[in-house]
Amino acid sequence: MNKKDVKVKTDSYKGVRDFYPKEWRFQKWLFWQMAEVCERFGYENYAASPLEYTELFEAKSGKEIIENETYNLVDRGNRNVTLRPEMTPTIARMIAAKGVEIPRPIRWYSIPNLFRYERPQKGRLREHYQLNVDIFGIVGIEAEIEVIEVGVEIMKNLGAEENDFEIRVNNRKIMNALFTRFTTDEDAVYELSKLIDKKKKISTDNFTTAVEKILGEKASEFISVIEKFSLENCITFANAEDIEKTKKLLNTLRAKGMKNVIFDLTLMRGFDYYTEIVFEFFDTDPKNNRSMFGGGRYDDLLDIFGKEKVPAVGFGMGDVTAKNFVESRNPKMLEQVSKTDVFIAVESEGLIENADGIAKKMREDGKNVEVDYSFRKIDRQIHSAERKGIKKVIVVEQRGVREVDLVALNN
Amino acid sequence: MNKKDVKVKTDSYKGVRDFYPKEWRFQKWLFWQMAEVCERFGYENYAASPLEYTELFEAKSGKEIIENETYNLVDRGNRNVTLRPEMTPTIARMIAAKGVEIPRPIRWYSIPNLFRYERPQKGRLREHYQLNVDIFGIVGIEAEIEVIEVGVEIMKNLGAEENDFEIRVNNRKIMNALFTRFTTDEDAVYELSKLIDKKKKISTDNFTTAVEKILGEKASEFISVIEKFSLENCITFANAEDIEKTKKLLNTLRAKGMKNVIFDLTLMRGFDYYTEIVFEFFDTDPKNNRSMFGGGRYDDLLDIFGKEKVPAVGFGMGDVTAKNFVESRNPKMLEQVSKTDVFIAVESEGLIENADGIAKKMREDGKNVEVDYSFRKIDRQIHSAERKGIKKVIVVEQRGVREVDLVALNN
Repeated sequence: MNKKDVKVKTDSYKGVRDFYPKEWRFQKWLFWQMAEVCERFGYENYAASPLEYTELFEAKSGKEIIENETYNLVDRGNRNVTLRPEMTPTIARMIAAKGVEIPRPIRWYSIPNLFRYERPQKGRLREHYQLNVDIFGIVGIEAEIEVIEVGVEIMKNLGAEENDFEIRVNNRKIMNALFTRFTTDEDAVYELSKLIDKKKKISTDNFTTAVEKILGEKASEFISVIEKFSLENCITFANAEDIEKTKKLLNTLRAKGMKNVIFDLTLMRGFDYYTEIVFEFFDTDPKNNRSMFGGGRYDDLLDIFGKEKVPAVGFGMGDVTAKNFVESRNPKMLEQVSKTDVFIAVESEGLIENADGIAKKMREDGKNVEVDYSFRKIDRQIHSAERKGIKKVIVVEQRGVREVDLVALNN
Repeated sequence: MNKKDVKVKTDSYKGVRDFYPKEWRFQKWLFWQMAEVCERFGYENYAASPLEYTELFEAKSGKEIIENETYNLVDRGNRNVTLRPEMTPTIARMIAAKGVEIPRPIRWYSIPNLFRYERPQKGRLREHYQLNVDIFGIVGIEAEIEVIEVGVEIMKNLGAEENDFEIRVNNRKIMNALFTRFTTDEDAVYELSKLIDKKKKISTDNFTTAVEKILGEKASEFISVIEKFSLENCITFANAEDIEKTKKLLNTLRAKGMKNVIFDLTLMRGFDYYTEIVFEFFDTDPKNNRSMFGGGRYDDLLDIFGKEKVPAVGFGMGDVTAKNFVESRNPKMLEQVSKTDVFIAVESEGLIENADGIAKKMREDGKNVEVDYSFRKIDRQIHSAERKGIKKVIVVEQRGVREVDLVALNN
C-alpha cells in the first residue's frame, strides 16, 4: 500500500466478466451440462495454459490475424507469447507432442477461457469460455455422427426441444468440386467462400452483385445451385463417394431420432482448417435465428508440426450463446440454489461454542454449514441467509435454539 | 495453414503445464479436496478473469515489483493490463465494487490460475493454481480460527496426519511493538522484517551480522527475544489485548483438537497487507521441512479503492506444494481412475448398430461409455482401453458379444 492517496477503480478490465457466486453457480451448472454429456460418451477432460507461443496460432491463421485480433506480449526472454484465441491449435499441439503414446481413439473435451481483442463498440466479450469436444483417430463418418449427437444431448441438457434448433450439414469436398466447376482461380474461390459465409448477413441484391463481380455471367447459375440443389443434385459436379458419405451421415442421424438435420450448400464455417464434413447448430427461434455452434472434420491440422496426419472431428460451443439460449428457453435455470444447506445465526459471543458444536455435528452428517460470527441482530443475520439463497437457518440464542425455514417463509 | 513449410514446436510455453487427461484428473481431485472443505464451511465459489488493470496490483505492491515480476501488456486502447499474479486484489476489488449489496459474512473461495514471471533457472512455474479462501465481515478471532480449521481439514483430505504438519502463528501488532522497542526508523523496521522473513534460509552467523548492521549493540537482545520469547513474555513490550487475542486463538485451536499449533515470533509472511494475526502451515517432514501455505488478517485492503474498511481474513494454498505433499505422503492418489466405465470394442463396420445399441442402453443406465470405431484388431482395442485406465470392455464381434474385466485380468 505504497500509494494510499490514489484511488483504484473497482471495474474489471474492459470486456471481461466478474463472476460473483450467484453468476458462477450458473456458469458451473452450464459447464456441467456440457461436461456430463462428454463424459457419458467417454470423453476425457484435459487442460492447458492460456499462454502459448505466438507461432502456434500464426502457423494456422497467418501473422496478420494474430497481430490484429489477439492479445500478444513479448516475454523477458524475447519469446512471442499469445493468449489463446481458440483451443484447437493447443489440442493439436498436445497430441502431436505425444503421438502414439496416447491410446486411440482420443476423445477429449475441455472448457477453456479464450481471449480475443474485440473492439468495444461491437459489444462482444474479450474473454469467453468455450466447450471443445474432439475425437482423434476415427476415419469413418461415425466420428461426425457421434460429435453431432453429443451436441444434441447438450442442447437437451440446456432444456431444448427438438424443434428449437436445426442441424445444418455441408461437405467441403462437395463445395470444392462446386467451386472448381465455376472457377479455377484460387483468389476467386477464397472470395466466394467469404461471401457465402456472410450470405445470411447481407441483402440478396448485394449478394448477387458480389457474386457477379467474381463469376460474371455464371453468377446466377452458381447462386441457383447453392440455394436450390439437394444433396442428390450435386452428383452433376461432385464425387459420388462424397455424396454417399454425406447421405450416410444425414440418414444415420435421422435414424437415431435427429429429424431436424438438413443439407445446406451455403454452410461454410469460416475459412478454417476443415477438410470434409462441416456442421452447425442453428437456433430456430424467429427472434433469435442464428448459428449457435458448429464444427467439422479437420484431418490435416497436425501438418503444422511436421507430424503424420491424424483424423480429427470436433466442435466448439461458446458459453455466451449457450447462456442466451437458456435465458430465452429455460430461464429458471439461471437461479441455481446455494450449495450451503444451513446458516447458523448466533445471538452473542458467549454462544459460539454452542453454535460451533451444532455446525460440527451437521458437517459430519454431510451438510454444508455456515456460522455467522458477526453477532448482529438476529433478524439481520436471517436476512443475510435469505439473500444468500440458503434455505434453512438455525438460530442460537440465550433462550434456546430454533429453526427458521426460509422456503416455507417465502411461499 | 499458410505456412505448411515451417514446422511449429510442440512444446508448451516455457514454465507452464499441459494437463493431459491423467494429470488433469489428479488436478481435479486436488481441487475438489480443497473445494469440498470450503463448501462444508459455507464458502461460495467465485471467479474472475486473469486480466486486470495493472493499477490494481501497483497500488498494493508498487510499480517496480509489477514491472519485474508479472506479465504485462498494453492493449489497443492504451490500457495497461496485467495477468494476475495473485487473487487477493481481485477479490478486494469485487467486494469494493458491490459493497453492502453482498450479504455478510462474505465467505468466498476460488482456485484461480496465477501468473508470475520467474527466471527459468529457479525451476519455478510461471503459471500455477492457488486456492484462495477468504472471509469478510467478521471482526473477531472466530474468523482466523475458522480459516485455520479449513486449512487443517484440507490437509486431512490430502491424507495428512496431525503430526505431518505444524501451524505457526504470529501477530503483526506484537511484532510492531517489538520493532518499536528496538528502533523507530522505518527503513530499519523494513530491513528487519525482510531479514526475519528469510531467517531460515540463511546461516545463523549471517543473520546475526545482518541484524547487527541494523541494530548495533541491541542486536543480540533482539535475536534472543524473537528466538526465545513465549507469547506470555511479550507482555514486556506488547499490548495485553493483542497478547490475549493471540492466546485465545491458540487455546481455541487446541481445544478444537489442533494440538500442533505454536506461537512463532519469527513468522513474518512477507511484507504483505496483513494487519494482525498471520499463520503458516509447515511440513514437518525432515526431508521436506518448509512452509506449505499461509495467510492472515488484512483489514485495510479496501483502502486502495477509497472504500470503508472491511474486516478480512484469508489464506492461499498453491497446487504445486499441495501436489508435492500428496506425492510424498499419499502417492496412490496420483492415480485417479478414468471416469469412463465401459469401452466397447467393435470388430467390424457391420456391427456398429449393435455396438451403438449397447452403448445407448448403458448410457441410459447412467454409465459413461466409449465406443471404438477404428475397427482395429480387437486385441489392440482392448489394449487401448487398458492404457486409458478403463475397467471394463465389451467386445462386439460377429460371433457374439462378450465382456472383458480388465481389473480381474490385471490382478
